[in-house]
Amino acid sequence: MQSVLCVFILLCLFQNSLASRISMISNGLKGCRLGAAMKPPLIIVVVVAVLTATRLKSATAAASSRDIVKTYSDPSVQLFNHLVIDKNTGRVYIGAVNKLYQLSPDLDLVATEKTGPELDADECSVLECTSTVNKQLTNNVNKALVIDYTTSRLISCGSLFQGICSVRNLHNISDGVVQVREAVVANNATASTVAFIAPGPPNPPVTQVMYVGVTFTLGSPYRSEVPAVSSRSLEKDRMFAIAQTAVTTGTRMFVNSLARERYPITYVYGFASEGFSYFLTTQMRHTTSSQFISKLVRVCHDDENYYSYTEIPIDCISEAQGGRKYNLVQAAYVGKAGSDLASDLGITAQDDVLFAVFSESDPANSNKPSNLSALCVYSLKAIRRKFMQNIKYCFSGNGQRGLDFISPSLTCVSTVSQPVKFECYLPPNNLPSAPASGRSNNSNQKLHTCTSFSVSYLEA
Amino acid sequence: MQSVLCVFILLCLFQNSLASRISMISNGLKGCRLGAAMKPPLIIVVVVAVLTATRLKSATAAASSRDIVKTYSDPSVQLFNHLVIDKNTGRVYIGAVNKLYQLSPDLDLVATEKTGPELDADECSVLECTSTVNKQLTNNVNKALVIDYTTSRLISCGSLFQGICSVRNLHNISDGVVQVREAVVANNATASTVAFIAPGPPNPPVTQVMYVGVTFTLGSPYRSEVPAVSSRSLEKDRMFAIAQTAVTTGTRMFVNSLARERYPITYVYGFASEGFSYFLTTQMRHTTSSQFISKLVRVCHDDENYYSYTEIPIDCISEAQGGRKYNLVQAAYVGKAGSDLASDLGITAQDDVLFAVFSESDPANSNKPSNLSALCVYSLKAIRRKFMQNIKYCFSGNGQRGLDFISPSLTCVSTVSQPVKFECYLPPNNLPSAPASGRSNNSNQKLHTCTSFSVSYLEA
Repeated sequence: MQSVLCVFILLCLFQNSLASRISMISNGLKGCRLGAAMKPPLIIVVVVAVLTATRLKSATAAASSRDIVKTYSDPSVQLFNHLVIDKNTGRVYIGAVNKLYQLSPDLDLVATEKTGPELDADECSVLECTSTVNKQLTNNVNKALVIDYTTSRLISCGSLFQGICSVRNLHNISDGVVQVREAVVANNATASTVAFIAPGPPNPPVTQVMYVGVTFTLGSPYRSEVPAVSSRSLEKDRMFAIAQTAVTTGTRMFVNSLARERYPITYVYGFASEGFSYFLTTQMRHTTSSQFISKLVRVCHDDENYYSYTEIPIDCISEAQGGRKYNLVQAAYVGKAGSDLASDLGITAQDDVLFAVFSESDPANSNKPSNLSALCVYSLKAIRRKFMQNIKYCFSGNGQRGLDFISPSLTCVSTVSQPVKFECYLPPNNLPSAPASGRSNNSNQKLHTCTSFSVSYLEA
Repeated sequence: MQSVLCVFILLCLFQNSLASRISMISNGLKGCRLGAAMKPPLIIVVVVAVLTATRLKSATAAASSRDIVKTYSDPSVQLFNHLVIDKNTGRVYIGAVNKLYQLSPDLDLVATEKTGPELDADECSVLECTSTVNKQLTNNVNKALVIDYTTSRLISCGSLFQGICSVRNLHNISDGVVQVREAVVANNATASTVAFIAPGPPNPPVTQVMYVGVTFTLGSPYRSEVPAVSSRSLEKDRMFAIAQTAVTTGTRMFVNSLARERYPITYVYGFASEGFSYFLTTQMRHTTSSQFISKLVRVCHDDENYYSYTEIPIDCISEAQGGRKYNLVQAAYVGKAGSDLASDLGITAQDDVLFAVFSESDPANSNKPSNLSALCVYSLKAIRRKFMQNIKYCFSGNGQRGLDFISPSLTCVSTVSQPVKFECYLPPNNLPSAPASGRSNNSNQKLHTCTSFSVSYLEA
């Protein structure tokens, strides 16, 4: 299966093409709907995204003769899922189906580790499996691959055994392997998982936690215990446990049990910026509609209870194409802008910028991308401003709190005394409306600050 | 001794004032001698540098009421020597006389470690001391404090026992302390030491080494074994040993035994940029003169034998003051330029920039700074270009190789076939002139590529 090579090269190509698009943008190409009191995102419609097998092959061949310096391939492996590069040493780590790789910066193989297949079944819990369960030889698909720089370890999580993670030595992935029996990531090949490390409770930035976003999966009685979004401890004796927990609160968010089977959330990308962690997701506009949109999820690093959990829709609209809306985010990257782009966005070259590629739904109202895509660029400064506007709007008694897939949406109630850092610190008695239990049976439903507004798109 | 507080606050003030000066520069203040084919360094004459005790006190008081959020002081300690901040966690580490500190990002004390005083004498080797030696209770002055991010360890080196280093856990400096008996840094309170970690042999960037520059000290028979510049291993079983050694070569440079007592080199700052490690130094213009100048020392990260060891003089000249020359570098920092400064320097905001503060000799021809100082800004791109020009000039058969304090200076000889990466890879048979033993008795003298030219100042 030589396709592994193509996948790997495609990653390189993607990096290159993103860079070239960005330089085009910084030369002044624009075209988007202008929003009120909002620097618009820059947009440029780019290449056809979904390559057929033939076109992928020819693209690879064309690139290899010109740009590729070195390649690494493993014909025996089905798919490379994730790739991370140690920023200190340049070492390359790859998470694949049933295998992990450690390569040198020149892509020479240093070590491999077999991670599957193993006997497993959806009915098995993370800790045990009775002999009556019919177990099958199951692939271990790599779902997350993250470097913990504060302890020089590689964290890899696979789909086997309800999605558990292991910790390895960065210098040699075969050394000191510790497997932790805690369900962290998605437990099949297709359900999305995003994981990244950033400051978090109890004591940021000294304590770093792993932020994880996971699509809910059916078929196992144990998946209801895996939060959709959580912050997980990286402390030696509490590895991957929810970083902070109390009886009904903690660093976790569940989609409520009534909504979770018909309200899939796909986690596409995650990143941290200036005191907050963000996830880019696709989900339905309302629990009652089937129209898919992209949303930014945000929690504050200081927040031990996810009181600051907030979402805003994020759109990518082509003004040049008569307001064509690219509604489904497909991939993203947070970096810095070049001088020209920074100047266009009204920021400095040291400020964070989100580059995100979107597609249209095809068929309409589905979560499947069409073969057209667009790149939109947002300054994190603008994103923070939009979150702030929404939160203030709700605190002033306007609109609905939204997010009824977590807990029933309530009307925002005017709150006279807003706490100073009200983006982060929202103790229950400062919430704009009184908590309500409603129809959800999820224990921590009432603690979220839900400030999503269907009218408050990031770009308009 | 409340001066400790002042020292610490002065560090903060210095950071702030550097930033404000840079913004002034980026607004277009310039004044310097223009060099041929060379983007000039920007220069601005700034504050009187040597504050008297009274003025320091008033400056501190003025600042504390406006800008200081939090302070940490220890009246029981004589001096804070070094401060490093973990870029991942924000933890603060301080190396002081006889003490190490670990503080939280909010400057709350987490841990302290006593490092001295202990019984020691110059006549003791790093490994042993006979009972006949008259040992004195001696302070342990912190000479280097470095974070090794690839293994999450803190490296601290003190003046005791010929200047040895210890390795500690970043999470708790009292945990897992390993002391290594190897003479690495200067062995008294005043002789300079600069240490930093960057990629190095045998396999950069996977292998990181500690680059160390040390002033030669008198009074001990063991100091001749400590190189002036060296790259030291960070591998567990070879900790602080010279990274690569052969019979006459290796990652080390000695000042020859005839010159070292009358040719002091002061190491002021060290940094890595794009494949090279640099030291900023003050030293004499010639071994035969007593005029002090500033020089940049450079070695290539790939170089297992310091064949690429090269120096260029670096000056800071005020055109506005009629060509006044600030000859002694006092402090420096490598960072990125803001958009305006980047544009002025002809670089991008992602390129490295060297900010360096210089003084004049006072009295003339001394290594003592006057009470006037100036800040000069250089792009690393310009610095690399100047090194390249000098090396090419010598390879073309022009000038002297210089650096006669290492080995006798020879006339550059035209070399027809320059190796492709001739900045780094200079095997002996490609050297512009045949090696000579001359008057120096230092075994590795003949292997340096000496391309220092008194006429090729960085700015002119």
